[in-house]
Amino acid sequence: MDKTIEKFLIRRITKESEANVEDMVTKEQPLTIILNDEELVTLLCTPADLKYLAVGFLISEGLLKSKDELSKVTIDEIRGLVRVKTKGNKEQTGELVFKRLITSGCGRGASFYSAADTGGEKVESQIKISTEQIFTIVNEFQHNSQLYLTTHGVHSAALCDQKHILVFNEDIGRHNAIDKIFGKCLLEDIATSDRIIITSGRITSEILHKVAKRRIPVIISISSPTNLGVKIADSLGITLIASVRGQKMNIYTHMERVISNEK
Amino acid sequence: MDKTIEKFLIRRITKESEANVEDMVTKEQPLTIILNDEELVTLLCTPADLKYLAVGFLISEGLLKSKDELSKVTIDEIRGLVRVKTKGNKEQTGELVFKRLITSGCGRGASFYSAADTGGEKVESQIKISTEQIFTIVNEFQHNSQLYLTTHGVHSAALCDQKHILVFNEDIGRHNAIDKIFGKCLLEDIATSDRIIITSGRITSEILHKVAKRRIPVIISISSPTNLGVKIADSLGITLIASVRGQKMNIYTHMERVISNEK
Repeated sequence: MDKTIEKFLIRRITKESEANVEDMVTKEQPLTIILNDEELVTLLCTPADLKYLAVGFLISEGLLKSKDELSKVTIDEIRGLVRVKTKGNKEQTGELVFKRLITSGCGRGASFYSAADTGGEKVESQIKISTEQIFTIVNEFQHNSQLYLTTHGVHSAALCDQKHILVFNEDIGRHNAIDKIFGKCLLEDIATSDRIIITSGRITSEILHKVAKRRIPVIISISSPTNLGVKIADSLGITLIASVRGQKMNIYTHMERVISNEK
Repeated sequence: MDKTIEKFLIRRITKESEANVEDMVTKEQPLTIILNDEELVTLLCTPADLKYLAVGFLISEGLLKSKDELSKVTIDEIRGLVRVKTKGNKEQTGELVFKRLITSGCGRGASFYSAADTGGEKVESQIKISTEQIFTIVNEFQHNSQLYLTTHGVHSAALCDQKHILVFNEDIGRHNAIDKIFGKCLLEDIATSDRIIITSGRITSEILHKVAKRRIPVIISISSPTNLGVKIADSLGITLIASVRGQKMNIYTHMERVISNEK
């Protein structure tokens, strides 16, 4: 916990009172990913599970497809470096990578996460989840993040089945939190198909492409989607449930996977 | 309003009822910025005020310093393109830009927003704001976004003085919302020094560097800061007020600019 939180002495002011108090603030650290001896990118992230983050980032960017392709991952926590070596695939680094990153850039543009990236292939899955199960698991998810409860400064993400949270992580970035999940799944051989992703963050097009790549059939968010998020979920066969708060939820797409009381 | 919102027919489920209802969802669009005939970056954004966004992005990335440097900005809304021509400064495009973007990448890394970018120079300002003024202006800020109130899917940002919101904008991205403010300020000759930025988003190191570049002495957030955000605010002489909700606020740095009841 200590490596993700720093205490600051601050002034807390309310209508009635003022006091100097200790405040817990979430840590932010630059992490540079070096892929086959070439500097690929620097992410700003929560300094925990950096190996998962680096591997998950490479998966989400389409630069890594399976565990077999990895030959070595080395972390230098102090300097904020992750060195990833892959077997072969030299052509994926250098100019090609640079070109892709430039096109997508800081905003992670649509050209990067093109239909070709996910193959445009529909996600097939027979998974069903009931509305009661959704309310229960989202409630568990929201109480799972000690870091969020302490600092209110992070996003959370989880891989679940209908009843249990299987992998949970958190990060100052909503992308990073999901990438940490997928990095762990790849490194520890945890299946992602027929499973559910829960996120505290908004559902934009990029998040949809990210989960589609891992063949996730259901995505649930505490927050709202964008129109592109809804359209991509619809076309890729992904069930999108969002704005889940208290005892309310919105089902945007593919509700055939949701068992409701009225069915 | 229409160009930023799309209606979807969704299933809304609560503990007691279920219904098909219309839901308003915030729009997301890719915007490619072409600087002096070279494709620079593709941002995902809310499709409004694209000119402000493109110019603001260039300012924040250090690629544009003043209005005088601009010779032409052309928007192609349908194809999602902004073409920006600058006078001279050819050396700023091409390899140099590419190198900078790669180093910083999608995560907008620390090496990009290095101390050199802001000159490491302290922001000097005699501005003072009272705690009552902060509560009042933040309350006004939170009720200013029709798009947020409708969709809950956007971040807001505003340039203010102690009493009034001077420029307001919103976007699916917290960076974009602030960039739209700075783009408008540059194009319409609105001064930013001695003024205040309010944001709905978290205060990370990158946000601090962005406001420091525009010599903003006070930043206020509804949300939380990271430890790097606090440290950079401290070292650059910026007053950082965060977690302003209802009648509570936290002052993290340089509270000499805040007039409280106890003083």
